[in-house]
Amino acid sequence: MQITCSQEQLSKGLNIVTKAVPTRTTMSILECVMIDATANQIKLMANDMEIGIETIIEGTIIERGVIAVDAKIFSDMIRHLPNEDVTIITNESTFATTISCGKEHYDLSGKTGSDFPLIPIIPRNQPIVIPQFRLKDIIRQTIFSTSENDANRMMGGELFEIAADKLRVVSLDGHRISIRNVVLADSYVDQKVIVPAKTLNELSKIMNGGPDDLVKIYITENHIIFEFEETTVVSQLIDGEYFRIDHMLSTDYETKITLNKKDLLDKITRANLLVSEVDKKPIILNITDGRMEMKIVSARGSYDGDLAISKEGRDIMIGFNPKFFIEALRVIDDDRIDIYMVSPKAPCFIRDDGGSYNYLILPVNFTAA
Amino acid sequence: MQITCSQEQLSKGLNIVTKAVPTRTTMSILECVMIDATANQIKLMANDMEIGIETIIEGTIIERGVIAVDAKIFSDMIRHLPNEDVTIITNESTFATTISCGKEHYDLSGKTGSDFPLIPIIPRNQPIVIPQFRLKDIIRQTIFSTSENDANRMMGGELFEIAADKLRVVSLDGHRISIRNVVLADSYVDQKVIVPAKTLNELSKIMNGGPDDLVKIYITENHIIFEFEETTVVSQLIDGEYFRIDHMLSTDYETKITLNKKDLLDKITRANLLVSEVDKKPIILNITDGRMEMKIVSARGSYDGDLAISKEGRDIMIGFNPKFFIEALRVIDDDRIDIYMVSPKAPCFIRDDGGSYNYLILPVNFTAA
Repeated sequence: MQITCSQEQLSKGLNIVTKAVPTRTTMSILECVMIDATANQIKLMANDMEIGIETIIEGTIIERGVIAVDAKIFSDMIRHLPNEDVTIITNESTFATTISCGKEHYDLSGKTGSDFPLIPIIPRNQPIVIPQFRLKDIIRQTIFSTSENDANRMMGGELFEIAADKLRVVSLDGHRISIRNVVLADSYVDQKVIVPAKTLNELSKIMNGGPDDLVKIYITENHIIFEFEETTVVSQLIDGEYFRIDHMLSTDYETKITLNKKDLLDKITRANLLVSEVDKKPIILNITDGRMEMKIVSARGSYDGDLAISKEGRDIMIGFNPKFFIEALRVIDDDRIDIYMVSPKAPCFIRDDGGSYNYLILPVNFTAA
Repeated sequence: MQITCSQEQLSKGLNIVTKAVPTRTTMSILECVMIDATANQIKLMANDMEIGIETIIEGTIIERGVIAVDAKIFSDMIRHLPNEDVTIITNESTFATTISCGKEHYDLSGKTGSDFPLIPIIPRNQPIVIPQFRLKDIIRQTIFSTSENDANRMMGGELFEIAADKLRVVSLDGHRISIRNVVLADSYVDQKVIVPAKTLNELSKIMNGGPDDLVKIYITENHIIFEFEETTVVSQLIDGEYFRIDHMLSTDYETKITLNKKDLLDKITRANLLVSEVDKKPIILNITDGRMEMKIVSARGSYDGDLAISKEGRDIMIGFNPKFFIEALRVIDDDRIDIYMVSPKAPCFIRDDGGSYNYLILPVNFTAA
C-alpha cells in the first residue's frame, strides 16, 4: 500500500476512529487502527467489538492495500508531525510500515489488515434524521443518570423510543429517571431500542457539525448506526425489554413550586460541599409559602440556605441526594423551573409545561431536626 | 472573632496561602488555614513546617480574634460563594465558626489558633530585589533538573548564588546541570544557599505581579523569605555544601554546531514518541558538515530525521536521553542555539554567548548502527 494524505486529514480521521479503540483488551489487533485503501478511497477504522467507527479521509492512493497499525503510537506520531503531506508505505509481505513527512521517517511494524475484525455490513432501512447538535444535547441531558457498573445491563444504556415524529430518550439508575422528548422533522415507524451509554458518549465527542448538519440513524435488530459527514459509527444494541416507566410518571401532585434555576443550583452546589463519598447526607428542603429553606448537616459542618419560591398546594419537608438535583439542574436550560411533589416518600418531578423534559428524583429518608 | 471581607479578597488570599497546606500530614492542625485578626489586620496563614505562607487581606475587624479552620473545606466554601461580603464569626470557647454570605450560613468546627505552628519571626537583613517575572522565569528554566526522590537532598533544591550584582541559579540531577545567570539592579554581599524545589514551585504559582512588580528576598542562616505585595513566603533552606560544579563547566570543545531551536525541539519531540518508560532508548545524533542526522530505534519502531546545521570542528556521533534535550530546549527562548561537544563520552553544553544560560547534558552509550 502507498498513500499520501495531509497531516490534517489523517489527524482529524484518527481523532474520530480512535474513540473505538479499547483501553484494555486481550486482542492486540483491536489496539490497532486499520487503514483500508483497497478501494477508491482511504478509510480509517477502529473496532472494540461493541462499537466500530470508520471515517473516510481525503488523500491519494498510489498503490492499493490495507494495513493495521498500533492506534496510540500512530496517532501520537501523526499528531506531532507538521501540517504537510504524509506518505504511508507498507510492505505487503512483512507489513513493515514507513510514515514519511519531509525528511523525517518513522518505521513501524504493522499487522495484516485481514486479521482486523470488520464492522458488520448491515442492511439499511429508512434513516431517522436529526440535527447533530440536537442529538448531542439530548445525550448530554440524559447520560448522567445511566449506571455503567450496575448488575442490570439495561441501566448502562438509554432507551431511544420513536413514535411517529416523536423521539423520547430515557435513562435511569434506580434513584432517578431522566427523560427528553424531541419532535422530529418527519414521521417514522414506531420502534424502541436500548443504546449503550458508552456509544452515546463517544458519539457526542466526535459529532461536531454546525447548526445545519444532520446525523442519519439506522436501526436494525441488533445494531444502531449513526452516519454523518464521512463518518459511520456502528454499535451493538443492548438486548432486552427496557423498564416500564410510564406508570411512574404521575402528573398528580400535592405541592408545586416555581423558582429560579440558577439560584437553586448555586445553593445546592454550595450545600453539597459538606457531602463526601463516605458521609452522604441529604439536603433537606423545607417548603412553605414563598420560601424554601435548605439544610445539610454532615461531619464537616452544616449549611443553611433559603430561597424565594412561589408555591401551590401543601407545605412539605423533603430530603434528597443533592448530587441528583445538581446533575439534573445543570442540563436544564430554563431560567425558571417547576418542581412537583406528592409526599416526602414519593418521587418529585422537575418538568416543563411543553413536555420537553421530565426528571424524576426519588427522595431519601431523613431525620427532621 | 468577627470579621467581614469580600469573597474576592478571601478567595485570593486562600488561593495563596493554601499552597503551604500539606497534602498528607499526621498533624491535623497543619491541614488548617489560620485566620489571624488579633492585630489591626486580617492575616491568613498556612504552614507545612517547611514552607510557611502568610498574606494580608482587606476587610473589617468587628471583634479581634484568631481561628484555624480546615483549609480544603473552607477554601471550597469561599470559592463557591458569590462575590459579596462574607462574615466570619467564631465562638471563643467552642471555636465553632459561622461563615455567612447573604442568607446562607455555613457552620464549621474550628480549632484554636494558638495550636497553629507560627511562621518563625526572622530578623531581616538587606533584601535582594528582583522583578517577580524574572524570578519566575529563572525557576521555570531550571526547576526541571532538580530531583526530588534522590537520596541526595541537595538535588531536591536549587543553588542560589549571589556575587556582587550577579545571581546564579543552579540545579542538577546527576545527568545534567541547568544554570541561569541574571544581573541584578544592585550589588549585594556574596552568599549562597540551597532552596527546596518545592518552595520554588509553590512560589512560582503565587507570584503573579505585573512587569514592574518586585519581590524582596531575605536570606538568613536557615531560612529564605520572599516578600511581595501582601504576601510573605518563609522557607527552610537545605543544609549543606552544594556540588562543586565549576570544574565541570569547561569551555573547550571539539565540535560546535549552530541550529534552529524550534526545528530541533520539534524533531526530538517526535523521535521521543518511540521512547517509553520501560524502553529508554537514546537519540543518536550523527553530526557532519551542514547536517545532523537523528535516529531512535526502539521496540515501538524507528525514527529518522535530519536537520540543517552549521558546524565548526570535528564530525561526531553522540547519543543522548531525548527527554533531557527536550526539557532544556523548551526553556530556551533563543531562535538559534549553539551546542558544544568534546567527545561521545563527555558532556555537551547548550549555552549562549552572553552567558545567561548553560545547560550541561551527559551523553549515553549507544551501539552505532
